[in-house]
Amino acid sequence: MRTPGAKRPSTMAFSKARRMRCAVGRVMAACARKVQSSHPKGAEKSMRRVVIYNRPESVYIESRGGSHHGQAETGVPVGFRRGHHPAQAGGEAETLQALARPASERARVACTVLMGRIGDAARVAVAEQALSAYAELDADQRLAFFRSMRDDHGVDPQAIREAYAAWDKAPDAAAVADLFRVVEPARQTLLRRLNLAPGATLQLVRMRQDLLAAMRADPGLAPIDQDFAHLLASWFNRGFLTMRRIDWNAPAAILEKLIEYESVHRMEGWGDLKRRLAENDRRLYAFFHPATGDEPLIFVEVALTQGMPDAIGPILTAPEAKLPEPADTAVFYSINNSLAGLKGVSFGNFLIKQVVAVLKAELPELKTFVTLSPVPGFAAWLAAQTDAPATELRTALAGDWPSNPGAVVALRPQVMAVAARYILQARARGGQPADPVARFHLGNGAAAHRLNWPADLSASAQKTAHGLMINYLYELDRIEDRHEAFIRDGTVAHGPQLAEALKG
Amino acid sequence: MRTPGAKRPSTMAFSKARRMRCAVGRVMAACARKVQSSHPKGAEKSMRRVVIYNRPESVYIESRGGSHHGQAETGVPVGFRRGHHPAQAGGEAETLQALARPASERARVACTVLMGRIGDAARVAVAEQALSAYAELDADQRLAFFRSMRDDHGVDPQAIREAYAAWDKAPDAAAVADLFRVVEPARQTLLRRLNLAPGATLQLVRMRQDLLAAMRADPGLAPIDQDFAHLLASWFNRGFLTMRRIDWNAPAAILEKLIEYESVHRMEGWGDLKRRLAENDRRLYAFFHPATGDEPLIFVEVALTQGMPDAIGPILTAPEAKLPEPADTAVFYSINNSLAGLKGVSFGNFLIKQVVAVLKAELPELKTFVTLSPVPGFAAWLAAQTDAPATELRTALAGDWPSNPGAVVALRPQVMAVAARYILQARARGGQPADPVARFHLGNGAAAHRLNWPADLSASAQKTAHGLMINYLYELDRIEDRHEAFIRDGTVAHGPQLAEALKG
Amino acid sequence: MRTPGAKRPSTMAFSKARRMRCAVGRVMAACARKVQSSHPKGAEKSMRRVVIYNRPESVYIESRGGSHHGQAETGVPVGFRRGHHPAQAGGEAETLQALARPASERARVACTVLMGRIGDAARVAVAEQALSAYAELDADQRLAFFRSMRDDHGVDPQAIREAYAAWDKAPDAAAVADLFRVVEPARQTLLRRLNLAPGATLQLVRMRQDLLAAMRADPGLAPIDQDFAHLLASWFNRGFLTMRRIDWNAPAAILEKLIEYESVHRMEGWGDLKRRLAENDRRLYAFFHPATGDEPLIFVEVALTQGMPDAIGPILTAPEAKLPEPADTAVFYSINNSLAGLKGVSFGNFLIKQVVAVLKAELPELKTFVTLSPVPGFAAWLAAQTDAPATELRTALAGDWPSNPGAVVALRPQVMAVAARYILQARARGGQPADPVARFHLGNGAAAHRLNWPADLSASAQKTAHGLMINYLYELDRIEDRHEAFIRDGTVAHGPQLAEALKG
Amino acid sequence: MRTPGAKRPSTMAFSKARRMRCAVGRVMAACARKVQSSHPKGAEKSMRRVVIYNRPESVYIESRGGSHHGQAETGVPVGFRRGHHPAQAGGEAETLQALARPASERARVACTVLMGRIGDAARVAVAEQALSAYAELDADQRLAFFRSMRDDHGVDPQAIREAYAAWDKAPDAAAVADLFRVVEPARQTLLRRLNLAPGATLQLVRMRQDLLAAMRADPGLAPIDQDFAHLLASWFNRGFLTMRRIDWNAPAAILEKLIEYESVHRMEGWGDLKRRLAENDRRLYAFFHPATGDEPLIFVEVALTQGMPDAIGPILTAPEAKLPEPADTAVFYSINNSLAGLKGVSFGNFLIKQVVAVLKAELPELKTFVTLSPVPGFAAWLAAQTDAPATELRTALAGDWPSNPGAVVALRPQVMAVAARYILQARARGGQPADPVARFHLGNGAAAHRLNWPADLSASAQKTAHGLMINYLYELDRIEDRHEAFIRDGTVAHGPQLAEALKG
Repeated sequence: MRTPGAKRPSTMAFSKARRMRCAVGRVMAACARKVQSSHPKGAEKSMRRVVIYNRPESVYIESRGGSHHGQAETGVPVGFRRGHHPAQAGGEAETLQALARPASERARVACTVLMGRIGDAARVAVAEQALSAYAELDADQRLAFFRSMRDDHGVDPQAIREAYAAWDKAPDAAAVADLFRVVEPARQTLLRRLNLAPGATLQLVRMRQDLLAAMRADPGLAPIDQDFAHLLASWFNRGFLTMRRIDWNAPAAILEKLIEYESVHRMEGWGDLKRRLAENDRRLYAFFHPATGDEPLIFVEVALTQGMPDAIGPILTAPEAKLPEPADTAVFYSINNSLAGLKGVSFGNFLIKQVVAVLKAELPELKTFVTLSPVPGFAAWLAAQTDAPATELRTALAGDWPSNPGAVVALRPQVMAVAARYILQARARGGQPADPVARFHLGNGAAAHRLNWPADLSASAQKTAHGLMINYLYELDRIEDRHEAFIRDGTVAHGPQLAEALKG
Repeated sequence: MRTPGAKRPSTMAFSKARRMRCAVGRVMAACARKVQSSHPKGAEKSMRRVVIYNRPESVYIESRGGSHHGQAETGVPVGFRRGHHPAQAGGEAETLQALARPASERARVACTVLMGRIGDAARVAVAEQALSAYAELDADQRLAFFRSMRDDHGVDPQAIREAYAAWDKAPDAAAVADLFRVVEPARQTLLRRLNLAPGATLQLVRMRQDLLAAMRADPGLAPIDQDFAHLLASWFNRGFLTMRRIDWNAPAAILEKLIEYESVHRMEGWGDLKRRLAENDRRLYAFFHPATGDEPLIFVEVALTQGMPDAIGPILTAPEAKLPEPADTAVFYSINNSLAGLKGVSFGNFLIKQVVAVLKAELPELKTFVTLSPVPGFAAWLAAQTDAPATELRTALAGDWPSNPGAVVALRPQVMAVAARYILQARARGGQPADPVARFHLGNGAAAHRLNWPADLSASAQKTAHGLMINYLYELDRIEDRHEAFIRDGTVAHGPQLAEALKG
Repeated sequence: MRTPGAKRPSTMAFSKARRMRCAVGRVMAACARKVQSSHPKGAEKSMRRVVIYNRPESVYIESRGGSHHGQAETGVPVGFRRGHHPAQAGGEAETLQALARPASERARVACTVLMGRIGDAARVAVAEQALSAYAELDADQRLAFFRSMRDDHGVDPQAIREAYAAWDKAPDAAAVADLFRVVEPARQTLLRRLNLAPGATLQLVRMRQDLLAAMRADPGLAPIDQDFAHLLASWFNRGFLTMRRIDWNAPAAILEKLIEYESVHRMEGWGDLKRRLAENDRRLYAFFHPATGDEPLIFVEVALTQGMPDAIGPILTAPEAKLPEPADTAVFYSINNSLAGLKGVSFGNFLIKQVVAVLKAELPELKTFVTLSPVPGFAAWLAAQTDAPATELRTALAGDWPSNPGAVVALRPQVMAVAARYILQARARGGQPADPVARFHLGNGAAAHRLNWPADLSASAQKTAHGLMINYLYELDRIEDRHEAFIRDGTVAHGPQLAEALKG
Repeated sequence: MRTPGAKRPSTMAFSKARRMRCAVGRVMAACARKVQSSHPKGAEKSMRRVVIYNRPESVYIESRGGSHHGQAETGVPVGFRRGHHPAQAGGEAETLQALARPASERARVACTVLMGRIGDAARVAVAEQALSAYAELDADQRLAFFRSMRDDHGVDPQAIREAYAAWDKAPDAAAVADLFRVVEPARQTLLRRLNLAPGATLQLVRMRQDLLAAMRADPGLAPIDQDFAHLLASWFNRGFLTMRRIDWNAPAAILEKLIEYESVHRMEGWGDLKRRLAENDRRLYAFFHPATGDEPLIFVEVALTQGMPDAIGPILTAPEAKLPEPADTAVFYSINNSLAGLKGVSFGNFLIKQVVAVLKAELPELKTFVTLSPVPGFAAWLAAQTDAPATELRTALAGDWPSNPGAVVALRPQVMAVAARYILQARARGGQPADPVARFHLGNGAAAHRLNWPADLSASAQKTAHGLMINYLYELDRIEDRHEAFIRDGTVAHGPQLAEALKG
């Protein structure tokens, strides 16, 4: 058997070229010329001209849109795309030549064209070309791309000076508006126009992920990141998100993403996943954004249990509860942000509170809402302590306590005492709790309710937290008070066990 | 039969109070106090405290979300809302007292709280309260609300001065970013936070519609409108829109909106609508935004015909074509923007081009894409002309030509000549074509292809255009050239008939 | 404007012929020959041969299938059908000739072919041809068609005799099975094979409706009706039905059917319908069958009220209840069977009980489930009575009591007394209650709870029932007892009011 | 952590009892009594009475129905079931006692009640109880159950005799209808009534699977199987099936069934499955029935290739084709019937032809539709041959040819010659081709197009077919001729390669 095209390299190359022409456009011949010449306007014109020839882009856009049923919402099934693509006459050579230009050139030129004087609808195609060229860049080229984005699409200093002077003379709201207009970097408009392309929103999120990496090499790119952050926060406003419960009837294309993105308690495969979606005693909820389709932005895994769990093992591995006495406790045992490019856009607090509300409505027997959370900074913090209890504990924990039940019993009071100190008193920069997970839940208005040790004997948990875990408690009617006390005074709400341990 | 509650006014009043408590919150007792006292911080705190008691808001939010199936996406059917609302203990008196405060006070206070230091999730409830109070305002109160929005949530002049000075000293991208941050009016953040509430996006669009009205009374509100325009353009980016074909299988709840929003060629009822959705020879496409659910933002009505139509009557009233010879022409005969609050956010050009692409893919036999458009400014323009041909024509058109076939034949050359002048040469401010519909289609890259007279004998069309209509032609491979020639040189692309008529 | 094809009759004729060729097939040339010749086998063969040439039938089938979204489930949108139909070479003349044969011939021949030795998949096309030809028949031709169905597709007497003899000798289960096989009329197989065609199930239901009409002319067709009844009861087994709530978000294509099918309390248009779907205080549920798509087989309209209603007017016309005190009563005020062809296949009892269960689950405050039903046989029954109270009442009711409140008060006791007799004692054939609606609800286990007069002043209700209505009460925990007492002893369960009135 | 109920066995037992009460009903107390007493009628009555108390069955039914979204179609989410179950007062002891009766008793009694005089709606609950009790039976008990079904729900011999005599006297259609009615075993009505229960259709299919097994122990059960076959063929009429394409966006709950049911070329896990669903060059289509929800009844796997494949390995393991030259060939490489209980109900021919039609519409470039099929009977047939060429080949194939390319080349002509004989000439009972796969495709009108050797080196294919595979060719315009020639004359259509090999 021959798999398609396998023995026909020359045909394939042609086929590939033809397809790429669709994706990139004959426009790039013009781009190439532009770079060599000094007639950007002519280049723009050429680009514009051919774009429309090549691209009834909307068909493509929607066709590719993430309907679960493999069809475009407008009724054009994916499979028809090829056949219905309008014929392109001529231009083959020109196209191949354009495709030969480096992607870095193509990306930059497309951005320039995008900011030029072309029709709105034509921008859709150019935006797609810009993103498509960007996708071919390597790390160095991306660095250069970001620098040109920073330097070529910034502000007009003279306009700022004039608007400031006008405002300074008559500082009313209208003058502020004028000033605002000229101070906003052109990059923001560029990003909004790039977003016209099909699927662009997710690509821009990934572009920001690249940018965060590039910033390590060049901190001077930070201003672009502020543009990204500003726009993404606006676009990913919670009002645009929808929460969905995901169960075993969800599309496999979504489910495999959960396996990929779960990083708190990794899944080994579909069996693990199925367990975490079991109807009787598990729930999984995620936020989605319409423009990123089936991409779960954040998801929380919940176990429905009798009583508050004190170890993660049974949650991950116990068989599904059958004929259960109704569960009285919902345990948030894993919360994962999926997209690094959305750093700083907060979802977690909204998600947790909405899940609590939904679960209460569905299962009125639930009385307790609690996490079973890792303590990822404990071991590192402990290693840095110099006082006697801490150093003693450190030494003791270096031994083989996991296989020694007696040692565990003996050690537990010490662990509790030192860990309570870590949670309640250890501070990082700005006076925030040292532990990052603690910062998140305490900032949400939860209480540090109960330490559990040993609760997670996985290698990573032993390494980062000596096997320690903690329950944070969400009590709906105290959340706001706790939130405020935490924000205002740094007060860490906590349960009796921690209070006791701290004294101890 | 008693209809529910009909004879039980006292109970109803109680029930109403109870429900409003859910919607507005005991928080308003605190609001009332705040306004009287000088301790805003205390008020904030009180507000925050009770919000959460009252509002597991997310359940409500999603439950109300516009799934066609009357159910929340999260599995909580609308009908269950009542029963599952968590009980509220006490506070009745306090709540009723809060509800007694004027809505204008409540709206303003809620905005202030929203900008204060409360938890993200709590903001959802406060935003809902702000919008709910706003909805109760009358025109004067809205004027006052907008003024306070302008004056209370602006910028910090001192911060601007300092950021400007810093930038002036070292005008790099980082300094621009800092300046940008302080120049952006706080209103934009306020609008983004209001958008957290369920259904807020549509409410904000309607709020802007109110604002546009209020600006007629107080042009000084324009800066707020710039904030709205800026945000709405970002939120309603074409990348977030989805196009859907609407046919007779669409939900009645959407269809009745089409009847309501159609203003070019009004529909008399469901019969008219059904004709415009007929499978064989009509199409209707609309853009939707995920956050405004079933609200069609813009829609275009298309007739599939043999040849280019020269009158609107048959399109609106001819029976559905059966067993058709495949149509060769798609006629865009009505384009409607639905939401006044989205003024300035352009959709029409995207929609037309996407519909062309979709139709070409579905019906390859279609060769011609053309409009049949009104000429809404013709009669007024003609009335203002003073030259001989125009004044003669005006006089002739004042007669009873519609009932006189001979007069029509005799008049047609004159009408064509003068109308061609109107379309091709008459200019408004800024050199744009005088006719607003011409501006739209010519700006999109269409050509003024053919004048048709008489083409619309409806009273309104006779009044505004003496029965004249026009076909604008969309030729995919010439759109960009025409767009550019129009933008750059003001060139109005046109067909041979208009060229001839102009000479004539 | 020309509507498609309007001026091109010759082309249309050709186009029509081409289309019909698709629908009917060149096979019909063979049909024509068959009828003339005495070689049915050859005809069959020809028929078979060409069928497949012409018909990739499945595409059509599913494409037309009733998805609400105007698309085939398999991804082939309706609009593509034309273009993708495989080219047919030649045969034009032959086809046109076949199409010239009378539909009655084509229908009969197709049935014969269908029972012959052709491939399963080919049967799909032949079945479609048979149904398509049937659809062209007039009443007389249908009568002839049914007769031929009875006479040509019956049983083989010799086979029956042999199978009976075998069973008579050794009457075991295997012999019964053999006998069963030969006793089942071939018509049942024919009907099952006709059902292979796309959309056939609904067409067969309508065919049975025709048959019921034809039986009035020829009672000898009754045996065919038994075959229909037998198959339809099996196909429309309650296990295959799904219940759906219909609200204002349902497709207009379904909603217009409700307007058409509602015959108990007619709707004047979409406004009436919208009222009956109002979220706050109305419900509408229907049964659907997968094979009949969007066709509501039966639907029930429910009002949610405070207390038991005593008149229909307010239910039909009162404005939607706002902020209701939760309703305590669900009133089934209209139940409609849609398809006459499903006569004898009972749905109503299943539907009512399921609706009760669903409503109880959704709205726990509902305590009472009751109908507000017409008494359609009351006036006719009363007119046939000869006793004094009845004749007196008859005379009194002939007057203008509706416009005379005093007369109503005075008459009511008499009406109640006589009506109670009608409901509780009047019997029709077989000892069943005389009133058909009473038979239905009492047979379902409901009680005749309360008479209401005057309750419906519409012309039809005055004519058939002198304005009388009745509430039947469904008490879940007594339904089975009442059902049994009614079936076994003819006991009519009833409320105190009727008991009192009867004595009165 | 305690998993729900883990440490509370007594509570669990109670909980289980409570739940079973819901599922089985207090009715069983009555069943128990019935069996002991001789008053079946009383038992029926008792049974009936309590059924309704316990079971608002419809809510359950639909709630459990297989919507992909975990919700009932009627809006009652699964999670609410518990809470809304109407309270049952008392009867605990009686219920527990009933539950203590053996399942075999309960199953039999429920069937008897089901055939008795109870309300239609009550039958839903009783049917569910019967099926639920049946599900608990072991193989021996099932055997007994089937025997009682055969013997208790058969025919009334006296009625048959009378109806026969009447028919014999006047053998018209009406008399046939009467005879038919009494000859139809009561079992068919029983099966139709069992089908009232939620999810019953699938359970009945599985019951027939059990029956087929039981028939091996007791061939006398065959008559029941005829009833099952008769009903299932009617219910699973192709007109009721829907075809769906399954891709990676399908629910995992469906996908895991494909992994389970695929038996031609087994999948090792989700990776294998994902490859077979790849958008670029694979397709998978299945038939579904509305009453069996997400259960794929039959599915076919298709590879889109360049040219006709001659080995299965690359199809199963080659990476997804990227940027393919459009495929010209669709290869049906695996067809699986999922449910053994549907034996004899043919789907495959419908499915293949519909898939061909859909693929042609979607991908017009496809020119060839072909299978790559196993030859499962080849090795066994070869082993039974005694002629020289066959015995020589057998000996040669016993060697290690797979690892010896020279041997393969040398052996191929012999393999081809003998295999062509097997396909074209070897016959089984009734003159049908000996090979079961050949029977299926040739009966569908395909041609035996090309032998491929070696084509499948898997252990099972080597064992059953010495690595041989075959392409059957589906040529749409020759299918019917070939079908007929095959049926009528036993003609096996074949390609030139086989013709040549046979001569050779």
